[in-house]
Amino acid sequence: MINKVTIAIDAMGGENSPKKVIDGIELSLKENKENFFKLYGNKDQLNVLINKKPEINNYCEIIHSENYIKDEESPLTAAKKSKSTSMWQSIESQKNDKSQITLSAGNTGALFLLSKLILNMVDGVEKPALAGLWPNKIGMNVVLDLGANIKCTDKNLIDFSYMGAALHKALYPKIEPIIALLNVGLEEIKGSEAIKKAYQHLKESNKNDFKFHGYIEGNHIMDGNVNVIVTDGFTGNIALKTAEGTANFITKNLRKSLNKLSILLSYKSLKQFKERLDPRNYNGAILLGLQGPVVKSHGSTDAIGFAHSINVCHKIVKANLLEKIKSHLFTVDG
Amino acid sequence: MINKVTIAIDAMGGENSPKKVIDGIELSLKENKENFFKLYGNKDQLNVLINKKPEINNYCEIIHSENYIKDEESPLTAAKKSKSTSMWQSIESQKNDKSQITLSAGNTGALFLLSKLILNMVDGVEKPALAGLWPNKIGMNVVLDLGANIKCTDKNLIDFSYMGAALHKALYPKIEPIIALLNVGLEEIKGSEAIKKAYQHLKESNKNDFKFHGYIEGNHIMDGNVNVIVTDGFTGNIALKTAEGTANFITKNLRKSLNKLSILLSYKSLKQFKERLDPRNYNGAILLGLQGPVVKSHGSTDAIGFAHSINVCHKIVKANLLEKIKSHLFTVDG
Repeated sequence: MINKVTIAIDAMGGENSPKKVIDGIELSLKENKENFFKLYGNKDQLNVLINKKPEINNYCEIIHSENYIKDEESPLTAAKKSKSTSMWQSIESQKNDKSQITLSAGNTGALFLLSKLILNMVDGVEKPALAGLWPNKIGMNVVLDLGANIKCTDKNLIDFSYMGAALHKALYPKIEPIIALLNVGLEEIKGSEAIKKAYQHLKESNKNDFKFHGYIEGNHIMDGNVNVIVTDGFTGNIALKTAEGTANFITKNLRKSLNKLSILLSYKSLKQFKERLDPRNYNGAILLGLQGPVVKSHGSTDAIGFAHSINVCHKIVKANLLEKIKSHLFTVDG
Repeated sequence: MINKVTIAIDAMGGENSPKKVIDGIELSLKENKENFFKLYGNKDQLNVLINKKPEINNYCEIIHSENYIKDEESPLTAAKKSKSTSMWQSIESQKNDKSQITLSAGNTGALFLLSKLILNMVDGVEKPALAGLWPNKIGMNVVLDLGANIKCTDKNLIDFSYMGAALHKALYPKIEPIIALLNVGLEEIKGSEAIKKAYQHLKESNKNDFKFHGYIEGNHIMDGNVNVIVTDGFTGNIALKTAEGTANFITKNLRKSLNKLSILLSYKSLKQFKERLDPRNYNGAILLGLQGPVVKSHGSTDAIGFAHSINVCHKIVKANLLEKIKSHLFTVDG
């Protein structure tokens, strides 16, 4: 067991939990047996599910939590009763060295607030950020912040750049991180004061482990010329959701435009294309900047999506993301 | 000629101008002969083009301009030599009652700056906004601001809401404008202070000629439940360009995934779908808030796109957009 990654899971959060959590664990074990799962939640419900799947029993430990945080609760209401909840306890387990990472499909606002309450900030980082994966032409982008911080200073954007590059390196170790700041134009004079200052800093920084590309506009996010895209949480959230909405609009209308025979004749390549765009295949947003990694699975994803977020957790711990972030932040520039 | 709309055109701006301008005019005249065009630009170049098309000669007057503003010039450089340019003169013609609206495919920043220098603001509006058209499931959205104002106050967002509703009514008179503020969540507590204040104002306003829907997230822009979407220029620009990029990514990849026979078998419906998404069919961004309407055609569009923006100009003048905006702004709430 010595090399296994221990993942604390808030087993009660999100739609169809805890069933999808257990199904997701089962799926993930088919690919990778190097994880051990500490499941926080209702013992009775979890036991019923696990007893049906004896092959995953050895990889799980159930820890009973009296309560859980509902998806519709406000973060502040959630915080009041929080210590008895599966979410709180799954995060706290990292502090007691009982786990190396926390995974939850529950209430995003509450997960963000409790993580900040329980885990300390990495020294030198002012605000944590939520980072997500977004496909591009040749691979995968890390995009942050996706909604944790409505307003950002230049310092925040610089921190996000370094943390995003460290995350990309952890998830895709063979690829050089190339950072870009999302902006409304490519000229140095464009954008807010915070963006312009962050641009100057990153341009003059002299780190060995990533490149700085400059600004990027929204229509080039998926071109593959950069792979770490940095913006404030307001813009990032709206950009990501606008892309989701556009993709849905087009694929739905397109399905209507193709008759059955057309679909049949291009079945294999259409299937590959569909898989490439399937959000389950990049499910798992990562909360960066805390002294312990926390991964948020989409609340409405299924077992396949949940299994993907387990895989993200595994890679983050194996790559020692936290140390990578610290070394990025403390490398002296210039 | 009494009922004709007189459109002043900066004939030199954008790729392939003035040729695409003349071709666009020719196309537009096939649909609608109720426009008269004042063409500002190089007389020799324009004469050569028009002499080849005697059927459009009666609908055009050429006014020679010594200079024109290049696409890559900074707005400030452009402003210095501006009085002798086709852009300046095409805007100024509105002040001398020589035209009712100005259309340019040239440098956006310069068009914005010169319009503000030449045309006065509508009383009560603090900042002009750039509004664009964006398809939704059942019709067309007006979205603003698309990049004129990086930062916006609540007052700006409220002005944009009223001006956007007036524009929607002018372009699509049979449809009730339904306004939404673009935000990162649907709860009243979400978003910046400016958005929250604008929300309260619009919720309590009691206008007869539009509805206020509340907040909308990026993934619902194309759902068709609202049709006037309001945001600051930074977010609006990035959302629009992200949607463009996503649409390009998907349609390009999709074309690769369909073999020739599949395309042939669904040819007609695929063609309809392509037309529905063709950006030329909603080309033309509208600068709102000035005492004279200015329309910006995309610099890289072709004659078909330019003809569409002529159609937008025609509708705006016929619907008396400016009076609609003024009456919206001055209707007493409550």
